[in-house]
Amino acid sequence: MFDSNNYIPFIKELAEKSSEVILPYFANHDVIVEQKSDESPVTIADRKAEEVMRDLIADRYPGHGVIGEEYGNENVDAEFVWVLDPIDGTKSFAAACPLFGTLIALQHNGEPVLSAIHMPALKQLLIGDGKRAMLNDKRVRVRSTKTLADAILLTTDILFVEEYRDFAKFEKLMRQVKLFRTWGDCYAYFSLATGWCDIALDPIMEVWDIQALVPVIRGAGGVITAWDGSDPVNANSIIAASPVLHTNVLNVLNRD
Amino acid sequence: MFDSNNYIPFIKELAEKSSEVILPYFANHDVIVEQKSDESPVTIADRKAEEVMRDLIADRYPGHGVIGEEYGNENVDAEFVWVLDPIDGTKSFAAACPLFGTLIALQHNGEPVLSAIHMPALKQLLIGDGKRAMLNDKRVRVRSTKTLADAILLTTDILFVEEYRDFAKFEKLMRQVKLFRTWGDCYAYFSLATGWCDIALDPIMEVWDIQALVPVIRGAGGVITAWDGSDPVNANSIIAASPVLHTNVLNVLNRD
Repeated sequence: MFDSNNYIPFIKELAEKSSEVILPYFANHDVIVEQKSDESPVTIADRKAEEVMRDLIADRYPGHGVIGEEYGNENVDAEFVWVLDPIDGTKSFAAACPLFGTLIALQHNGEPVLSAIHMPALKQLLIGDGKRAMLNDKRVRVRSTKTLADAILLTTDILFVEEYRDFAKFEKLMRQVKLFRTWGDCYAYFSLATGWCDIALDPIMEVWDIQALVPVIRGAGGVITAWDGSDPVNANSIIAASPVLHTNVLNVLNRD
Repeated sequence: MFDSNNYIPFIKELAEKSSEVILPYFANHDVIVEQKSDESPVTIADRKAEEVMRDLIADRYPGHGVIGEEYGNENVDAEFVWVLDPIDGTKSFAAACPLFGTLIALQHNGEPVLSAIHMPALKQLLIGDGKRAMLNDKRVRVRSTKTLADAILLTTDILFVEEYRDFAKFEKLMRQVKLFRTWGDCYAYFSLATGWCDIALDPIMEVWDIQALVPVIRGAGGVITAWDGSDPVNANSIIAASPVLHTNVLNVLNRD
C-alpha cells in the first residue's frame, strides 16, 4: 500500500536542491541563455536542475524510473517512476517573470500519486497526494466560488487556445468570468489549489507537465480532466476547477 | 535646479515603509478584504499604505502637495507634489499574484521628475529620474530588440483594449510579436525598464498611475507616450517601448 508520507521529505529535497541550481539563472542579465530548436527559451538552469534531481533519485531510489523533459526516459516500467519538468513556464523564466515552477511527480504503477508544484522565485512549495494539499506545510484547498461571474480564469496563451480548440467557446467563457489573465503554466494550477483562482486550463500540454498537477489539484479538492472531460493522466490538455465550476466550464467549452 | 539625489533616500523610505504595511495583507487568506463600489478589490493595505506615506511626507516636507488614489488631493499647487498609488494592480494583489506594485512619483512644477515602481512581493525597487534608472541600486536599461517578431508585449487586460481602442489593430500587433502576456499593471513597465520585455501598453489609465512610469521609462532609455503618440503626463493611456520599437508600435496601433 502506497503511503505518500514516506516520500514527502524526499520530494521536498528534490524541490529544494533543484531550486538552488535554478535561481542563480533567474532574472539575471549576466547568464547565458540557450535556446532549443523549438525556440522555447529553455535555459542552462533547466538541464542542470534535471541533472541534480536525477542524481538524487539514482542515489536514493536506484530501482525507480525517471521521465524528464531534458534527458528522456529511464526504466519507465518500474513500479515507481518520477516525472520531472525542472522549469515549467520557460517563457516566463526567460522573461524574468516569477510565474514559472518546477514540476515533480511520483507515479506508482503508472498513476501519479504524489506531486509538487514548486515556485522557486516565490518560495512557495505546494505538495499534494490526491487526498490533501499543503502549501509550505500548511493545508490548502480550492475555494468555493459559486458562479462563473465571480470566477478568476487563468490560462497560458490565448493563441494556443485558438490553435488547438474552439476559440469562440473559450471567448464566451472569458466574457462570463470576473477576471481573465494569462498568468499561465503551472502558476495557474498553483493558484487554483491554493484557493486564489477558480479555473485553470491549457488547450495543449505535455504528459510530463500534467502528472504533477493531478495529485495537487485532487488533493486540494479540485476536479481535473482533459478538455473533453476525460481522464487527464494521459491527455494533452487540462481543465481544472472547483467541483462546482468544473461542470459549468466543461459545458461552455464543449457544448453548442 | 532640481537634483533627484536629494530625494532618492526619501523615496526609498516611502517604498520600504509602505511595503511593511502592505505585505502582511498579501496572499493571506486570513485577512479581510474590502471592496469599493467600483468592484475593484482594493484592500485595507491600500489605504494603510497611503496613510503611512502621507504621514512621512507631511513630517518631512510639510510644504509639499500630495495626490493619492485613496485620500485625494492636498496642496496640489505646491512646487513639489507627490503622486501615490499604494497598490497598482489591485486585481493581482487580491488574487495573491505578486505582479502588483507601489507607484510613487515626485512632480516638480507639474512634471514628474523622480519616481519609483516598487514590487514589494518581489523585493524589487526600481527608481528613475528621466536620466537613469536603478533596480535595487544597480543601473538598468531597456533592451535593444530590433523587430516586433522578437518582441515581448505586455498589457493588463485585453477586454480593456477592446473597450477603449481599436481591437483589430491591437490584434495585429499581438500576432506579430514573439510573446504576448497579460502580466499587466505596473509590472509591464517594470519589466520594460529592466530590459526583460519590449512593449508595455495600457488602453486606459489614471493620471496618478502614469506619473511614476515617466521618469522610470525615460531614465531607462525608453520612449513613453499616450496611445496616439502624444505627451503621456496628462494622458489616459500609455504606450512604452524601446526607441526602435516604439515607432513601429504606434504605427500598427494607429495607422490604417
